[in-house]
Amino acid sequence: MKVKLITIGKTNGDWLIKGIKEYQNRLTHYTSFEFIEIPDIKNKGNIPIEKLKEAELTEIEKYLDKDSFVICLDENGKEYSSEDFSTFIEKKMVSGTKHLIFVVGGAFGISDYLLNHCNDKIALSLMTFSHQMVRLIFMEQLYRSFTILKNEKYHHK
Amino acid sequence: MKVKLITIGKTNGDWLIKGIKEYQNRLTHYTSFEFIEIPDIKNKGNIPIEKLKEAELTEIEKYLDKDSFVICLDENGKEYSSEDFSTFIEKKMVSGTKHLIFVVGGAFGISDYLLNHCNDKIALSLMTFSHQMVRLIFMEQLYRSFTILKNEKYHHK
Repeated sequence: MKVKLITIGKTNGDWLIKGIKEYQNRLTHYTSFEFIEIPDIKNKGNIPIEKLKEAELTEIEKYLDKDSFVICLDENGKEYSSEDFSTFIEKKMVSGTKHLIFVVGGAFGISDYLLNHCNDKIALSLMTFSHQMVRLIFMEQLYRSFTILKNEKYHHK
Repeated sequence: MKVKLITIGKTNGDWLIKGIKEYQNRLTHYTSFEFIEIPDIKNKGNIPIEKLKEAELTEIEKYLDKDSFVICLDENGKEYSSEDFSTFIEKKMVSGTKHLIFVVGGAFGISDYLLNHCNDKIALSLMTFSHQMVRLIFMEQLYRSFTILKNEKYHHK
């Protein structure tokens, strides 16, 4: 199973880039993982928010295949414990999912169209995290879920 | 109101130290904030987990005053949205709380004694975050809560 995390905009700040790189490296031991940063839409400050999200969606769609299982990270999505999230990942692997795609929106979130048409929605928390930090937080959880599936020491319950 | 975040063990990794520093700096514009790292207990690998947590509690107690309002970050605590967390912080300020103390445990969490005797428990998520990354995630939320209270642009809903 190939896993992709699609994000909007360059990662800001060298410490965040380093943190993301660390979990990206750790993930390579468990799965084929790709971290995608779609460049910010030009003149985004002058575009109405809904139009901006649509333009971002057009870019996101370039990374989706017909057989992609697309999951939006959205605060209205389902919340999982880390254990349940690892079970979720396992089920996707066992059921033969080839492309598991997670999408993090830009600063204003994901377009309504994608939210209504994706395969699933998950929330990392009731709290709103910055769309920048979500990258790091999500990748740590994805890494954690693989260590849980492999019964490794990283996760303490 | 003075806010403290008490954590166990040195922060690992220069990127995480930098990220924490960034939010620590941002917080100084809004409140008196202190980030406390209690050094790891010596030989912690050879101490039974419950004994280790008790030894950590002894160190934590050195930073608590009688008038401290102590909140444990614990996965069984109450979850808040970012807006509700900012309201929670505001209520603490308005009610004249002098020392608002947040405690993050070590790798194995917080001692049962403190969990049972603290003033409140909050959870950042149903997911388990590393006790290292919780520092960063919490400080971003605390910063976010002050920007919400000040009606600043950082938080988009």
